[in-house]
Amino acid sequence: MAIKWSEKAVSVEALSFSPPIVILTQDDLKKIAAYKAVEFVESGMVLGLGTGSTAKYALDRIGELLRQGKLTNIVGIPTSKKTQEQALSLGIPLSDLDRHPTIDLAIDGADEVDPHLNLVKGRGGSLLREKMVEGACKKFVCIVDESKLVKHLGGNGLALPVEVVPFCWKFTANKLQNLFQRSGCVAKLRNDCEGNPFVTDNGNYIVDLYLKKELGDSQIASDAILRVAGVVEHGMFLDMATTVIVAGERGITIKNKG
Amino acid sequence: MAIKWSEKAVSVEALSFSPPIVILTQDDLKKIAAYKAVEFVESGMVLGLGTGSTAKYALDRIGELLRQGKLTNIVGIPTSKKTQEQALSLGIPLSDLDRHPTIDLAIDGADEVDPHLNLVKGRGGSLLREKMVEGACKKFVCIVDESKLVKHLGGNGLALPVEVVPFCWKFTANKLQNLFQRSGCVAKLRNDCEGNPFVTDNGNYIVDLYLKKELGDSQIASDAILRVAGVVEHGMFLDMATTVIVAGERGITIKNKG
Repeated sequence: MAIKWSEKAVSVEALSFSPPIVILTQDDLKKIAAYKAVEFVESGMVLGLGTGSTAKYALDRIGELLRQGKLTNIVGIPTSKKTQEQALSLGIPLSDLDRHPTIDLAIDGADEVDPHLNLVKGRGGSLLREKMVEGACKKFVCIVDESKLVKHLGGNGLALPVEVVPFCWKFTANKLQNLFQRSGCVAKLRNDCEGNPFVTDNGNYIVDLYLKKELGDSQIASDAILRVAGVVEHGMFLDMATTVIVAGERGITIKNKG
Repeated sequence: MAIKWSEKAVSVEALSFSPPIVILTQDDLKKIAAYKAVEFVESGMVLGLGTGSTAKYALDRIGELLRQGKLTNIVGIPTSKKTQEQALSLGIPLSDLDRHPTIDLAIDGADEVDPHLNLVKGRGGSLLREKMVEGACKKFVCIVDESKLVKHLGGNGLALPVEVVPFCWKFTANKLQNLFQRSGCVAKLRNDCEGNPFVTDNGNYIVDLYLKKELGDSQIASDAILRVAGVVEHGMFLDMATTVIVAGERGITIKNKG
């Protein structure tokens, strides 16, 4: 679903590959974007460590560079328990936001990226910790394959995740659905693979909002969601990414916030 | 701290007592307000049951009227585990928001009431469930003694409670403190009587914001707090109370939203 981006808000740098001799899979593209992002990492940095299939490649690469001695004195701030475990297994020293309230650089994936570098995140379920960590960064590099590019957030048939308290979640889900009735919103509780409610690292549930039409003004939609009592956080990351690295079959594109 | 209210937004009905022959304590005043509120209850209603020392008197009174057969067919929606226990002990049939998403009437106390009937609640720690239940009511009767009347929310030296996720709560508390730096804000984690963090019914913490000066526009302050990742809910109840019953030494005042 690669779309033509407006390039008003961003500067764009395109790095073409040599003519490909193999067809690149989506996983290959994720890895290419992740490795490119890790080039921004310098020794001595406090790093926000993202969660998800693309961020995992970045973490692996950081671990590799640490082992090779090409990076030293890194402190990682994980955005989920899963990332924390992966980082520990890679020997990356860890800390948290209380001890390191300012982060030099975070690297994380996204589920949707719009032309203004606004994101939807949280289909992996870690949106709250990701938002806390990435909101504390001097630089937030988002890494995606080109299938994640959208013209508008929401309304692409994919979910906008909202973290809610378990107490009377149906009531909260109905409120959210009614809020975006005009966008054809259907709110569904996310289940785990055993059919039980998916529980976040914070002990909450996720309600996924499926929208038939776009949400309209993202900031207004954001405030409207946050005003619903029972909502903890949502997956729109507005004005947070400073750089987006997009890996596509024809090369890498780096977009910087203007 | 009784103050002169602007009466623009409300209609006021004053009910004088006969000349008092005893001096009324604050508890007497709470009880008077609570009993007056229960006069709004009718058989067959779905009732939001508040939490705290004033709401407790209302609950006792509802239980008494049920036992006497003067009220029948009541369904209560408790706003806390504590209220749930009290209601069960009084034989009040209970339900929840998922089964009863529309509530006829809620009765609850408040920590501050401004002239527009905006409230601060949550010093008892149940602000989230209270906000969910009271936001689902056709009528929300707030009951207070006159010491709770303020000219502006916040800035009276008392706390504005904010429910936050435990994950990196210090980071969130600092963000909140910085948000209201101009109001001389000091953010403090609420502890229980044993000196451990107070844990809400939803497994979260409470950060109390102590403000030297008023917050300014309450709706702007509300949105700013809700935008902080890590915040679940805050204790400002804006435009929610439909009636406030104030018990003072000189009588009861009933203020209705205009």
